[in-house]
Amino acid sequence: MPPEPSASPQTEAPAEGAVMPPEEFRRYGYQVIDWIADYMRQVRDYPVLARTRPGELLDSLPPFAPEAGEPMDLILNDFQKLILPAITHWNHPRFHAYFSVSSSGPGILAEALIAALNVNGMLWKSAPACTELEQTALGWLRQWLGLPESFFGVIHDTASSNALHAIAAARHLADPEARRRGHALPLTLYVSEHAHSSLEKGALVLGVGQDNVRKIQVDSEFRMRPDALRDAIEADLAAGKKPFFACATVGTTSVTSVDPVPAIADLAERYGLWLHVDGAYGGTAAIVPEFRCLLAGADRADSIVVNPHKWLLCPIDISVLYTRRPDVLRGAFSVVPEYLRTQEDPRALNLMDYGLPLGRRFRALKLWFVMRYFGHERAAAMIRTHVDWAREFAAWVEADSRFEVVAPAPLSLVCFRYRGSDEQNRRLMDAVNASGAAYLSHNVMAGRFVIRFAIGNLQTTRDDIAEVWRAIQQTAAGLQE
Amino acid sequence: MPPEPSASPQTEAPAEGAVMPPEEFRRYGYQVIDWIADYMRQVRDYPVLARTRPGELLDSLPPFAPEAGEPMDLILNDFQKLILPAITHWNHPRFHAYFSVSSSGPGILAEALIAALNVNGMLWKSAPACTELEQTALGWLRQWLGLPESFFGVIHDTASSNALHAIAAARHLADPEARRRGHALPLTLYVSEHAHSSLEKGALVLGVGQDNVRKIQVDSEFRMRPDALRDAIEADLAAGKKPFFACATVGTTSVTSVDPVPAIADLAERYGLWLHVDGAYGGTAAIVPEFRCLLAGADRADSIVVNPHKWLLCPIDISVLYTRRPDVLRGAFSVVPEYLRTQEDPRALNLMDYGLPLGRRFRALKLWFVMRYFGHERAAAMIRTHVDWAREFAAWVEADSRFEVVAPAPLSLVCFRYRGSDEQNRRLMDAVNASGAAYLSHNVMAGRFVIRFAIGNLQTTRDDIAEVWRAIQQTAAGLQE
Repeated sequence: MPPEPSASPQTEAPAEGAVMPPEEFRRYGYQVIDWIADYMRQVRDYPVLARTRPGELLDSLPPFAPEAGEPMDLILNDFQKLILPAITHWNHPRFHAYFSVSSSGPGILAEALIAALNVNGMLWKSAPACTELEQTALGWLRQWLGLPESFFGVIHDTASSNALHAIAAARHLADPEARRRGHALPLTLYVSEHAHSSLEKGALVLGVGQDNVRKIQVDSEFRMRPDALRDAIEADLAAGKKPFFACATVGTTSVTSVDPVPAIADLAERYGLWLHVDGAYGGTAAIVPEFRCLLAGADRADSIVVNPHKWLLCPIDISVLYTRRPDVLRGAFSVVPEYLRTQEDPRALNLMDYGLPLGRRFRALKLWFVMRYFGHERAAAMIRTHVDWAREFAAWVEADSRFEVVAPAPLSLVCFRYRGSDEQNRRLMDAVNASGAAYLSHNVMAGRFVIRFAIGNLQTTRDDIAEVWRAIQQTAAGLQE
Repeated sequence: MPPEPSASPQTEAPAEGAVMPPEEFRRYGYQVIDWIADYMRQVRDYPVLARTRPGELLDSLPPFAPEAGEPMDLILNDFQKLILPAITHWNHPRFHAYFSVSSSGPGILAEALIAALNVNGMLWKSAPACTELEQTALGWLRQWLGLPESFFGVIHDTASSNALHAIAAARHLADPEARRRGHALPLTLYVSEHAHSSLEKGALVLGVGQDNVRKIQVDSEFRMRPDALRDAIEADLAAGKKPFFACATVGTTSVTSVDPVPAIADLAERYGLWLHVDGAYGGTAAIVPEFRCLLAGADRADSIVVNPHKWLLCPIDISVLYTRRPDVLRGAFSVVPEYLRTQEDPRALNLMDYGLPLGRRFRALKLWFVMRYFGHERAAAMIRTHVDWAREFAAWVEADSRFEVVAPAPLSLVCFRYRGSDEQNRRLMDAVNASGAAYLSHNVMAGRFVIRFAIGNLQTTRDDIAEVWRAIQQTAAGLQE
């Protein structure tokens, strides 16, 4: 006779005492919300760049985890006391290094709900809401960007991952046997010399090899030269190589230059290359009607990436890959073991088939919250304003004879330098960063050290920009002494 | 003369009106916390498997995003009304399909803070806390697992990504020229026929090719046969192939079998293969002292994966890759453009160098919260209890002559079947799932349909297990009529 389940003395779950009781969750949840609300109000009071030294946090933490559980009070206290001083505040309105980002209120609330539901959107069945809301939200975003309805969208963590996905799909189209046989053809890939490093990384990870990544020359405004692209393709063809992938960047990381997508699309079509548009940062600006032209020609792309966690108010991470060849993407990635096989229904997409990771967070929820809360108007207004301020900032730089703007600033990144030595520029940047007033980053262009100033945080005001500029000017005055 | 920044009429930020005011954030934040607290209490009231039909949510949502922003009330209302019915509740105590997971209170609170800080841990400088807390938390976890101190840990999103990282590192060791030249050698890779599909996917993405993935036979308990592995390696060597990577799984997805890691390590050493241990689910059980033997031999591995988002109370996603060859991992992935170049300090790790994605969420925070809140005792007690219950469930199945257990259940997954046709088993599973009482999944083993029952949620009680078993029995009784 089978044991009678309900008769066992183990009915009281030993694990039960371990659950955080809902009332305790509520109490600490309010504390966390209060902390975040205050943080959003007071974020300006923090130095943007953390002032900690390497190893300082590590040394302050115990080398062993506790054997017995600890009260939440203690943990939140340590968060405040130990973690916070080691935070570089990406959500600070004066974070101007890299592309500035905003984690907005609705995005943060969505993240809490995502964590509570904890769904894994690998299969339609395992997470219908994740699967379908992803299609809805990406359909909305596609309209904001003015992309054709035929573009299928899928969310991954970062643009780096999506670059790898795009190149893998391109290879699958160029060499369907690679999946089975392994990478074997001498495939060559084309990016501008200012393309993001993730394209090169994707190529080397996939087995294409760095030697087969062609970094195409740019013109005086740092845009890929179509004639140089054509020459490189022709040279490779003559050498027996197989050109298969070209990336046009809309808003390069180093300088936000915009490659001539239509001309590159012409060449991609002529030579049968997969055209990828990397609009991780700059592509988002196309939601502003007067900047829609940024994506001119992108309707001819095979794939395009935009990152809502950059300039579209979502917390990190969420990167969108659109492709008009979902069948090819699926062909490159789909591997379905029996335990993940589901009944076929043409409307029940299994999004795991379109990418590398099997586990998929419910990232669409934050994009949906953000798009609804801000609406097109406010999101577009923010981007428009940031671009205006970048132009104004560039004008201030130009108007100060001690400085020069070193590249056009079509979006919200201004690259400039102090008319002095590289060492002086580095000292200038380091001094501003160390002051806590702002966080700037650098690049080396044409052999010279330049300072990058990017605008992109929702809380940034024109006063912030003006004060950072004053801090830069004052620091420069100190350099001359 | 430069324009005077402060004199501009634009001082009032146009973007400012778009920020969610802190008081509004606080109000809706409390609502979200209340909702989650209630959800955690009432999650049992939901059907585990969503009852929505394919396309139902999609059809209920407007095809266009709003032009003007919408109030948060409306968004949260739609979340409740439209999204929730399309949720399959992974955080439900009767979610027994796939490996059950728990998003715990401290993990959810950490996610809200991660979103608010919004740091990108690509560089030490860009996020010292993210970089150093990752090392601390992974050091703690390494101790819980009994792994050697020499193992370096890094966090990525999922075990699928980490499998790709491990294989890429192995290739870099076997063929350092591949990075530059591209994948060219006839590399062969070895996994058990029950290994996770992500190994195969990783191999095909990297350009190794599915034809070069050897699925090694298992013994009667579904563990990789070392003699078969040796024979496969020898055959490949004789055929001029280059064996380079072997994966031993600790807790296979289909049946939680544990491959003989020490014997596989012997072969890996003899033939110079990179040894990877996939402990995404099962490896975590090694935090229980009496299950530490699960990782016997893993100290000889070159890499090992465990997923805190599976059996260690963290919300999805967080997967840990340990390796004793961080230099090789770095060699396989590091690409540093000038704008990401930082001053060298041996203690200032740039974690972007150890993987594909440049963007890195502050995932360590949730692991740190969870390890501290539960402590080793409570986390281990939960896992021990789940294993006990799985054994008890297996005994109930064995004691009912209508059923059979089809594989040993060393961890918390029981694979069983109704002694009838595959069709009856499928009907049984579908009926239980449709009832909302539980969510079970299936597999096909030795040509027969089997039902998978996994235990792993923190809120699960022994009563849950007993009631699900009763529901299965009652449903089976209906099958016979």
